[in-house]
Amino acid sequence: MKIDVSLPGGRARVSRIVIGEDVMERIAEEVGKALRGRSVFWVWDESVWSLWGKKAQSLGWPGLDEGHVIPFAASEPGKRLTAVEFIARRMINAGASRDSAIVAVGGGVTGDVAGFTASIYMRGIPHFQIPTTLLAQVDSSVGGKTGVDLPEGKNLLGTFHQPVQVWSDPRFLSTLPDEELRQGMAEVIKSAVIGDEVLWKFVENHSESIKKRDPEALLRIISASCLLKSRVVQADEKESGYRRVLNLGHTVGHALEKLTGYRLRHGDCVATGMMAAASLSMRLGMMQPGDVEKIRNVCEAWEMPVTIPRSIEPADIIAAIQADKKRIGDKLHFILPVHIGKVMEYTEIDNDEFLDVLEMMRGE
Amino acid sequence: MKIDVSLPGGRARVSRIVIGEDVMERIAEEVGKALRGRSVFWVWDESVWSLWGKKAQSLGWPGLDEGHVIPFAASEPGKRLTAVEFIARRMINAGASRDSAIVAVGGGVTGDVAGFTASIYMRGIPHFQIPTTLLAQVDSSVGGKTGVDLPEGKNLLGTFHQPVQVWSDPRFLSTLPDEELRQGMAEVIKSAVIGDEVLWKFVENHSESIKKRDPEALLRIISASCLLKSRVVQADEKESGYRRVLNLGHTVGHALEKLTGYRLRHGDCVATGMMAAASLSMRLGMMQPGDVEKIRNVCEAWEMPVTIPRSIEPADIIAAIQADKKRIGDKLHFILPVHIGKVMEYTEIDNDEFLDVLEMMRGE
Repeated sequence: MKIDVSLPGGRARVSRIVIGEDVMERIAEEVGKALRGRSVFWVWDESVWSLWGKKAQSLGWPGLDEGHVIPFAASEPGKRLTAVEFIARRMINAGASRDSAIVAVGGGVTGDVAGFTASIYMRGIPHFQIPTTLLAQVDSSVGGKTGVDLPEGKNLLGTFHQPVQVWSDPRFLSTLPDEELRQGMAEVIKSAVIGDEVLWKFVENHSESIKKRDPEALLRIISASCLLKSRVVQADEKESGYRRVLNLGHTVGHALEKLTGYRLRHGDCVATGMMAAASLSMRLGMMQPGDVEKIRNVCEAWEMPVTIPRSIEPADIIAAIQADKKRIGDKLHFILPVHIGKVMEYTEIDNDEFLDVLEMMRGE
Repeated sequence: MKIDVSLPGGRARVSRIVIGEDVMERIAEEVGKALRGRSVFWVWDESVWSLWGKKAQSLGWPGLDEGHVIPFAASEPGKRLTAVEFIARRMINAGASRDSAIVAVGGGVTGDVAGFTASIYMRGIPHFQIPTTLLAQVDSSVGGKTGVDLPEGKNLLGTFHQPVQVWSDPRFLSTLPDEELRQGMAEVIKSAVIGDEVLWKFVENHSESIKKRDPEALLRIISASCLLKSRVVQADEKESGYRRVLNLGHTVGHALEKLTGYRLRHGDCVATGMMAAASLSMRLGMMQPGDVEKIRNVCEAWEMPVTIPRSIEPADIIAAIQADKKRIGDKLHFILPVHIGKVMEYTEIDNDEFLDVLEMMRGE
């Protein structure tokens, strides 16, 4: 399937997302065509290179020559400007010019860092993405956000720079650790809750085939999630408004990540955050208890945390949310689910009610 | 005078350049207005801060409070991503958000680094420029180029990010060292040769008042140069074509900078490069010897180098030019003056003729 995302900004006005079971085989030809004569530089997550590099070479992906493949030790602590400089210097020394392009192969960190490098290399060259984790396939490769972290926080430096094209093949997920699959599933579940009841039913009924990495099941959830996200970002590229619905679960989620020093993973925190949003929505009389239960059941089927660790004080969560909003220069926009497939934005949350809800979610 | 530069890209579609003898006094009010409620962070070249900081405070420039003024040790070797990270971290820790803005006060390096930081801070915030060197007032503050260097070369990482507004006051130049004034004058002379005979006449006849930093004389040359450059970049923001006329003198100039390890200054090298372009043009029968002499005379009146140091081999200059073009991924576009006020682009230069011309320009 192909999804075209037309966005107002960025070098590439239209970003095409190609999802399919034969994508790996088609990349050789399609990358070649998309390059339009540009020389290509590959930024590969080094662990993905060791798993899939030979396969890519055997399939004839273009330009996988010495000097044009830059192995990148992707990790959240390494998502810094020093990594950008490392990649850029490797490219300069291998002869990359204004007429070159970057292809990123890996997860979200690789895509963010390589996309950011492309956006500033000689003031901007095109880039392409081949996401190899579920999280990157359904989330970070869509929407054109690139960036790196500062010690003070995540993604504080970056650009909007649409990839020209994104190629997603579910077979990459066959080598993905279970824990990484779970991180991606949290965003899939989030997409369903935001706006896709059909995807929700599918996820409810097919968790086993997804866990077994059945390519057809994976195709379904990747396509549906990409479609949902691309519809939303297309309506609002620069996050001034509607795009905020994608933050379902992220307000509390980010606070949990910060308060645990990023010991808890992003997807897991989003799951807990979604439960908090659903519980608050129920408390406000907007969501039926049955729907909250459904979300809990799916999260539990995936072994996602649905309670808040006892070590974390609810008041600290609220303080962290407020500090975050202040730093970003944004008001508190709380995205609450109304039923499965529909969310709404709330800007005035009663602190006491919110505290109560968080208190009731505390686990052992 | 006000010049509005409308450019297709960048966050700020229109960049307004305000040039005048009372600009310093107007900044307090105009910055306040332009900020539209944003919090302001100042990136000051630290030597400019020590010369002009008190004056700015006495004039009530807004937000010059502790934590909001980031002194920056501007230098070409320090024009690196580490400087961007330094400024960004200072901003984060002082509470800068997506609703903040940056004002850069200083020369070209300060403007380039601060503008680049603004373009990637939380994926882009507005910035303003108060250039305090002639070179920055007539050249680097116009056109929206931002960037930093790599050890492999200058400005290899950067963005196009228009300043919302530029305020140029000629009185800043009263504290500018003579050598720095000369670097800016090379770009002024270049502007005149490219497309402004009136400016040329003025420069020919008023070098003494310019050297004495007479504000009226400075106003004339700053305004005319900004107008010329803004007209050119407006026609072609992303340097795909017409903007190349601004490279008059820069082809040989860059080569000289590189071959001397940046021991020779940029403006001086541009002057030598302009002489090379004029001499080549004369050799090709396009420029009258009298016009070449005029350019030489003005350059000499400013003590700009019009000969190539004997230590540099002409063949090395040609090799450096070719390597540079190859790295950028560009063909050789040689800008040659036809007469004062008119240039044309040449893409096919006979190497032997070029060598001859360079050989004849060698000095003691």
